[in-house]
Amino acid sequence: MTTKHLTAEGLLAQTLTAIHPADASSLVAARDRQNRLTKPLGALGVLEDVSIQLCGIAGACPPPAPTPAAVAVFAADHGVIAQGVSPWPQEVTVQMVANYLAGGAAVNALARVSGAAVLVVDVGVATALEGLVPPGSIVVDVSTIGSDTPRLLERVVRRGTADLSQEAAMTTAEAVAALEVGITVAGELVQAGYRCLLTGEMGIANTTASAALIAAFTGATANQVTGRGGGSDEATYTHKISVVASALTLHADVVAAGDPVEILAALGGLEQAALAGFILGAAANRVPVLIDGVIAGAAALVAAALAPAVLDACIAGHRSAEPGHTITLAALNLTPLVDLGLRLGEGSGALLGLPIVQAAAGVLREMATFDSAGVTEKIS
Amino acid sequence: MTTKHLTAEGLLAQTLTAIHPADASSLVAARDRQNRLTKPLGALGVLEDVSIQLCGIAGACPPPAPTPAAVAVFAADHGVIAQGVSPWPQEVTVQMVANYLAGGAAVNALARVSGAAVLVVDVGVATALEGLVPPGSIVVDVSTIGSDTPRLLERVVRRGTADLSQEAAMTTAEAVAALEVGITVAGELVQAGYRCLLTGEMGIANTTASAALIAAFTGATANQVTGRGGGSDEATYTHKISVVASALTLHADVVAAGDPVEILAALGGLEQAALAGFILGAAANRVPVLIDGVIAGAAALVAAALAPAVLDACIAGHRSAEPGHTITLAALNLTPLVDLGLRLGEGSGALLGLPIVQAAAGVLREMATFDSAGVTEKIS
Repeated sequence: MTTKHLTAEGLLAQTLTAIHPADASSLVAARDRQNRLTKPLGALGVLEDVSIQLCGIAGACPPPAPTPAAVAVFAADHGVIAQGVSPWPQEVTVQMVANYLAGGAAVNALARVSGAAVLVVDVGVATALEGLVPPGSIVVDVSTIGSDTPRLLERVVRRGTADLSQEAAMTTAEAVAALEVGITVAGELVQAGYRCLLTGEMGIANTTASAALIAAFTGATANQVTGRGGGSDEATYTHKISVVASALTLHADVVAAGDPVEILAALGGLEQAALAGFILGAAANRVPVLIDGVIAGAAALVAAALAPAVLDACIAGHRSAEPGHTITLAALNLTPLVDLGLRLGEGSGALLGLPIVQAAAGVLREMATFDSAGVTEKIS
Repeated sequence: MTTKHLTAEGLLAQTLTAIHPADASSLVAARDRQNRLTKPLGALGVLEDVSIQLCGIAGACPPPAPTPAAVAVFAADHGVIAQGVSPWPQEVTVQMVANYLAGGAAVNALARVSGAAVLVVDVGVATALEGLVPPGSIVVDVSTIGSDTPRLLERVVRRGTADLSQEAAMTTAEAVAALEVGITVAGELVQAGYRCLLTGEMGIANTTASAALIAAFTGATANQVTGRGGGSDEATYTHKISVVASALTLHADVVAAGDPVEILAALGGLEQAALAGFILGAAANRVPVLIDGVIAGAAALVAAALAPAVLDACIAGHRSAEPGHTITLAALNLTPLVDLGLRLGEGSGALLGLPIVQAAAGVLREMATFDSAGVTEKIS
């Protein structure tokens, strides 16, 4: 797919131009090196594949260490909350942002395990956050963040989307602006020295927008892609499916026309847009990006529609329990590193995959070869 | 099963007596606390189960941090190598031990990711190691080990087993002695402050001994439990199955009699025996033990036959690509944390699971509750 919403001088256009497939010669060098390491051929399974992918992304073998890492939690609200698609009130988006900044959420606990820095980006929470988050947590650049010093960037495009089941969730200009927020944040993190980026998000009702996007980009039905999100009961779940289905009917012409930015604007959320930009930005900077669950997966579908080669830089952290995520992973041809029934978001699944990516890099960077270690090779 | 190879004053007997099921009140407290954390009920999937298990092991909620962690790599040789069951010569056991101590193996690269200390324990390598390993790497206690300072303990029971396809691999006294090496090492690591123990091993031909043990303890056939280990070609693989089958026939009476120590002595290896003791020792000390792949799984079958409650302290790090491992995990009712097609051993799969265990503990130890964070709970 291509989009007409590009100008040659725009950041989105420049970013798409900067995304290239994995470096072929580094992939060859990486496979060759894997085969000389002190272990039976192929004995590290998927870890070997990831280590080779890291070389392809960076254009170097061995690959650079994927440390330090940073998870960016893009937060926004959704007009479709008005349809009663979530058992959680919209105020929880703000409350959870405050929780991230106070260090008390799952994303914080999991980020500490691997020392990943936590950055929250307000790309469109319904309420202004000043005064609702811990003092000092709002910053203007990413230089002060850490796993124990989570910080917030205010990069609001609009304060919540419109109701995607009644009208376009946002204008195409807003969608491009949110994409560019994500691109910019990825660039700032790379500039600050981060060498592995992880996707996170928060936004009450955002599994509804994700289901709509996944259906639009994969051709699956509302029934197939809609899950229970944050724990919908049967009645809410059935209703949520019908809301997704009617949104797909309302925007059928846009979906059929196939412009990724128009589809994103019609059915998406500001955090999905920013996440798509963040993924594109990581790839343009030749840095691996760990994709979290169903929300990030929807964003990856948008990113891949704009620049298919972006997937060479993407690693799926985990498989979410949300049904739309399995469909998304299949469409993206991504193999999840972890499959433990999580359905939380925030970046939790990406963070569980991070040590595995670090391990993969460590194997190629640190292991001895048969020659260097003086180990006898297999006889038969 | 019970064993007659116990004396009331013996270390093995004392250890079995010290193993108790998970603490019921801590399990209840942990489930209750999980349900009050700032996330939808159940949204952390298996991570929640592991966090609750950690409380049951320690008898405390929240659980103690599973750090620092140590992986113990038990190394030994196998007389069954004479049957041509492996494409690797026996000298590779020694060479890989030297590689671990030089820091160049997969276990070293993976241990660095989570800061786990690496301890190699020679429980029966065929050749004396003095002079074949880096100077200074042989120590008499575990106080100096670290992830970048791997060290070796000499705890040789005998220099390699007899050929299990021709006679008992070892005497029952030797099996008990090797079990007690593992128990002792676990105790020394806990005494030194380690709070999570990981199983590792090295021994050319040890997938043959493991297949025989798994068949004996689960009732599966040689055909079902035998895999290609370190990369056997078709002819070696077919032959390996026949060697396992004939060993099971030779020792059928011992298997039928059902004494776990007798079965271990007949069909096992010194490292499987030491690993079984190590697992028992961790449980007796109420410390979680991360089980690696098919070799450690065979050892866990021995341990569970001696003390079924030991499994409450066991966490399966991963699912190995070896067919016998899936049968073992099912028999032990353990859910692997990672499933990435590894078939290396050394502790690699246990080490991949370690950050997930750390994450599980972090969730219960560090996350805010709805009350403490002022987050509104679900409406419906």
